[in-house]
Amino acid sequence: MINVSIVGATGYAGEELIDLLLGHPEIKITHVSAKIDKPQDISGLFPRFMNRLDLTCNLPDPEEIAAKSDLIFLALPHTVSMEMVPKLLKPGKRIIDLSADYRIKDIAVYEKHYNVRHTDTAHVKDAVYGLPEIYRQKIKGAALVANPGCYPTVAILALAPLVSSGAIEPDSIIIDAKSGVTGAGRKLAEGFLFSEVNEDFKAYRVNAHQHAPEIDQELSNASGKPLKVTFVPHLLPLNRGILATVYVKKAHSSKPIAHGLINLYKEFYKGEPFVRVRQEGDFPRLKDVLKSNFCDICVKEEEGSVIVVAGIDNLLKGASGQAVQNMNIMYGLSETLGLL
Amino acid sequence: MINVSIVGATGYAGEELIDLLLGHPEIKITHVSAKIDKPQDISGLFPRFMNRLDLTCNLPDPEEIAAKSDLIFLALPHTVSMEMVPKLLKPGKRIIDLSADYRIKDIAVYEKHYNVRHTDTAHVKDAVYGLPEIYRQKIKGAALVANPGCYPTVAILALAPLVSSGAIEPDSIIIDAKSGVTGAGRKLAEGFLFSEVNEDFKAYRVNAHQHAPEIDQELSNASGKPLKVTFVPHLLPLNRGILATVYVKKAHSSKPIAHGLINLYKEFYKGEPFVRVRQEGDFPRLKDVLKSNFCDICVKEEEGSVIVVAGIDNLLKGASGQAVQNMNIMYGLSETLGLL
Amino acid sequence: MINVSIVGATGYAGEELIDLLLGHPEIKITHVSAKIDKPQDISGLFPRFMNRLDLTCNLPDPEEIAAKSDLIFLALPHTVSMEMVPKLLKPGKRIIDLSADYRIKDIAVYEKHYNVRHTDTAHVKDAVYGLPEIYRQKIKGAALVANPGCYPTVAILALAPLVSSGAIEPDSIIIDAKSGVTGAGRKLAEGFLFSEVNEDFKAYRVNAHQHAPEIDQELSNASGKPLKVTFVPHLLPLNRGILATVYVKKAHSSKPIAHGLINLYKEFYKGEPFVRVRQEGDFPRLKDVLKSNFCDICVKEEEGSVIVVAGIDNLLKGASGQAVQNMNIMYGLSETLGLL
Amino acid sequence: MINVSIVGATGYAGEELIDLLLGHPEIKITHVSAKIDKPQDISGLFPRFMNRLDLTCNLPDPEEIAAKSDLIFLALPHTVSMEMVPKLLKPGKRIIDLSADYRIKDIAVYEKHYNVRHTDTAHVKDAVYGLPEIYRQKIKGAALVANPGCYPTVAILALAPLVSSGAIEPDSIIIDAKSGVTGAGRKLAEGFLFSEVNEDFKAYRVNAHQHAPEIDQELSNASGKPLKVTFVPHLLPLNRGILATVYVKKAHSSKPIAHGLINLYKEFYKGEPFVRVRQEGDFPRLKDVLKSNFCDICVKEEEGSVIVVAGIDNLLKGASGQAVQNMNIMYGLSETLGLL
Repeated sequence: MINVSIVGATGYAGEELIDLLLGHPEIKITHVSAKIDKPQDISGLFPRFMNRLDLTCNLPDPEEIAAKSDLIFLALPHTVSMEMVPKLLKPGKRIIDLSADYRIKDIAVYEKHYNVRHTDTAHVKDAVYGLPEIYRQKIKGAALVANPGCYPTVAILALAPLVSSGAIEPDSIIIDAKSGVTGAGRKLAEGFLFSEVNEDFKAYRVNAHQHAPEIDQELSNASGKPLKVTFVPHLLPLNRGILATVYVKKAHSSKPIAHGLINLYKEFYKGEPFVRVRQEGDFPRLKDVLKSNFCDICVKEEEGSVIVVAGIDNLLKGASGQAVQNMNIMYGLSETLGLL
Repeated sequence: MINVSIVGATGYAGEELIDLLLGHPEIKITHVSAKIDKPQDISGLFPRFMNRLDLTCNLPDPEEIAAKSDLIFLALPHTVSMEMVPKLLKPGKRIIDLSADYRIKDIAVYEKHYNVRHTDTAHVKDAVYGLPEIYRQKIKGAALVANPGCYPTVAILALAPLVSSGAIEPDSIIIDAKSGVTGAGRKLAEGFLFSEVNEDFKAYRVNAHQHAPEIDQELSNASGKPLKVTFVPHLLPLNRGILATVYVKKAHSSKPIAHGLINLYKEFYKGEPFVRVRQEGDFPRLKDVLKSNFCDICVKEEEGSVIVVAGIDNLLKGASGQAVQNMNIMYGLSETLGLL
Repeated sequence: MINVSIVGATGYAGEELIDLLLGHPEIKITHVSAKIDKPQDISGLFPRFMNRLDLTCNLPDPEEIAAKSDLIFLALPHTVSMEMVPKLLKPGKRIIDLSADYRIKDIAVYEKHYNVRHTDTAHVKDAVYGLPEIYRQKIKGAALVANPGCYPTVAILALAPLVSSGAIEPDSIIIDAKSGVTGAGRKLAEGFLFSEVNEDFKAYRVNAHQHAPEIDQELSNASGKPLKVTFVPHLLPLNRGILATVYVKKAHSSKPIAHGLINLYKEFYKGEPFVRVRQEGDFPRLKDVLKSNFCDICVKEEEGSVIVVAGIDNLLKGASGQAVQNMNIMYGLSETLGLL
Repeated sequence: MINVSIVGATGYAGEELIDLLLGHPEIKITHVSAKIDKPQDISGLFPRFMNRLDLTCNLPDPEEIAAKSDLIFLALPHTVSMEMVPKLLKPGKRIIDLSADYRIKDIAVYEKHYNVRHTDTAHVKDAVYGLPEIYRQKIKGAALVANPGCYPTVAILALAPLVSSGAIEPDSIIIDAKSGVTGAGRKLAEGFLFSEVNEDFKAYRVNAHQHAPEIDQELSNASGKPLKVTFVPHLLPLNRGILATVYVKKAHSSKPIAHGLINLYKEFYKGEPFVRVRQEGDFPRLKDVLKSNFCDICVKEEEGSVIVVAGIDNLLKGASGQAVQNMNIMYGLSETLGLL
């Protein structure tokens, strides 16, 4: 059994991690913590865990956490993770960090988009970006995995085969993404009140969202040259899920794609346990991926352009599910264990 | 034209009042105010009023409000109204208060259930309970109208004919009420976040809600002797509306109700513009009354008991619509003006 | 491995069964069928099962089903089950029937409320009512389990301890129940269209629902004498879950309940893996039980009366989860296998 | 008073028309009809109209309708309108047709996209496309107004200023549109059941929607040369409203737009009562336009491209509200009468 701690257990991603790990046969949750006023039974915080997990949620104490765990999940807000990480790496613990703090390699870009100074730049370089479909080999041996953002996960998986193929204009990428409300975390702001979100729909941070540089970084890597996407996120009046509709221009010079686009995708994701390339015309809807770790993708070729629709559950493949997938890889377990 | 002010314009009831009064042919909104950080255009606060209302929302100043208005709507939280009322009554203004501060005649009961000292007991006695179906004559000449609570409105209208008739056991009344989220106001609490309320449903303040004594007071008046209801409110994952299902035992001694229950209700509400007694078996659903000032009621007689289902829009007949109805009565206008 | 078939795989309960059984370590789904126009891959019908279940859904053929299965789940509409059951019992198969056809022992009552003639009365007597908390011993050896209805499950669990204790007036029971839309099955009727249900709420079949006699039957058994409940179901604008608020009068003659009501419930459900009796004042909300097989119950004692609030997921403890629980009991497996 | 009939009164657009016209001071609804099994009181079909409209809904009889009306609203499915129109134009009645039958000038294009033969091509030429912001002068004298589709209304209003200015690449237009469920009408299909739509989101008819040629036609007119848009509609889990996010490339040769994009839009829509151009960065959300006839638009200039976000209520500016606006224009009434 692997002993794991969850820091930030009271947020949506932390709650989802508990739920997943309780069903995982090789894991024992030994410690849960969060920024709370006073220690509280996890079943008092979340009655759904009554009779399932008998632990008290405390304020996070790095020493105690290190003592009790082999692996630590940090489900913390951005900028809080970077305070915790060095204290847990030092005693040799392995970490999967769900915040943005270690995802972006260019510190200046991070600092600009998150509007904060990075205080643990030393570990950014060694952190492995936890997208198994791209970095599986590196994840295996990683001490620190930077679990991807929810929008970047779906955007990168939707575009990596196209961008790598060289068949498209790299600067033509438009990502029109729509996310459920848990994507923003359990945040107490008027904009997330039920009566504000329900029966409403809106674009926000129009082409100015902090996830854009993360997408740019990874698609630039895939492309081999720097590119910048147009990225407009929208808020859906539902709890979970992200669906992205992506528009790209084909490269002027491009030859017809051999065997078609769908085959390009099927080839790229061959053997991947959690990416399902759908048949022509069979566009995924959110329901197909909710409560699962799958990313479903469908591609349509138009004259001169390509449309991609891809969907994930933002709390699973977009956060906690992917974190568990990374854990399985790090510990040499079956990659789907506890996730199917 | 009657000049009106709205104090507390940024809450749901205040917003709804603006919307209603903009469509009212005899009203000019001359002033809007609320507890805000700095003055702001009402169309900045609510883009839906852009090109419709050109006023700045300020902090409420009683002197300025009195100077600009014939009638003032107070859409304020409980306990804030009682500070404002004396300052506006003194210069002879008429007031419709949407808070609970002047609804309950027994000061001790108010203080117990709202957990606060009443600082304007002098005006409680003269305030008229603004339920037109019961107090229309008194409302006409009132200086201060205490606009009923949303749950009490639907509960009293659902039960007044039965209770007055003497045909039921007064202590057998059970009110199982379900309300949309705007009933709680624009309140920043975790329990009202979208992801908490959506796909959820719960009972709250089980037989311990502060609206119970208001219902007790008015049904006791209707009954002629003191009674206490069992009242359990529930939170619906939708924006607007209250539906109450009410259960009562028939009096042991009661004779059959002449011409039946539905006729009893039809007779009681004869000529009422905003109460619709539905045919047998035609139970109202929320949609029938949403965005309207109607209260729809259906009654079903069982062996030994009676079931009543009644519905209103909590922001209209349960708050702002009823306030406008009261205004129409106070100023001798057609009672339905601006409401149909 | 136990080989199981699901008949009626395209409804909500059938879909949920597939999902549960795919995660059950002792089960192999060998056959799925439904009333469909032409055979279709299950992953074509439900893309969520893509890469998870590789079976074709056919029209149900009793012979084929019997040949391929040890146990058969019938997730069929009422009256369709009774045609299938005799054909599957004959070759010695065990059956868990999720329809109402074998739940009601009094054929006349069944025929009146379901408005149909029963054509397999012979097997009604031997069928075991599949509520483990009451009938666990009988379920173990049953050939045919009549899986309880969703409303009856929550109503009976909420009331059995009280009714058995003799502390209440048996004819005073009022059950005000609220259900999500999947409770009605995947039914193509205008009343279940999104724009009709969303932002709406209504009572339906007011004290005339076909689940009432099922509740009456089981609570009469628990009480030792015949009783009739008042039962009003309501339709919630959400996908899953039932919450019931129950009102009962205490018996006039009743002595104070020793150690209190909550202890009465805790004692009654001692050792039950899927009933959680909540602490005083800690009323369950739907979220606490969604996606789980738990029934959460809280009780509140008032002067002269008792209020009970209980919740389940209608597709799990109210249908497919309870069916799997029954299967675990029938096959001597751990009762929680595949359900936690 | 103008006597009006509504044909197709039982659909969402028909219901909305009744609601609007009941509040219109210059209109008397003299007749309502629909394809129904037997004549029925409108208040039986829609309890919300109880005590507000005392008419029986009949099967549509062109002679009776012509006899009772000055103006007829046809809120009928596509292809049903073209059977009715000639019969009502002949006796000299004026018509506002909410179907697609008279919107598309090129019969071949209509027949291809609606998959049907057009049987009244004679009147297509004379029909005026009822978008007041473009065709106000022609609408004044029109006998037959083809009321625009919901998606085309928001798409054309979002793009007309840009397209007319010549500042963009005409073939670069991408319209990612999201609509509430009433946009599909009161259609009995599994895809519109509550449990299917709720908590789901999907793209549909990806770049193959029948509204695309209508958008192409009008934007080609605005541009002065033929263009084709990329148009991907999505289904939102909410009742009303369309929000479109539009992406366009600036023309390579284009000079900087004098005074900026927002001024271009403000100039274009100067004096328009129902188009509100929002300030920079103040992107509209659905709530801003729901239950109103407004179209709100915000534009953002990026390097080389432009992003436009625009929203309407699909049942008002996208259907019945625009129809009433057209009626006001046709009869020389104030354009906002009954709409503010």
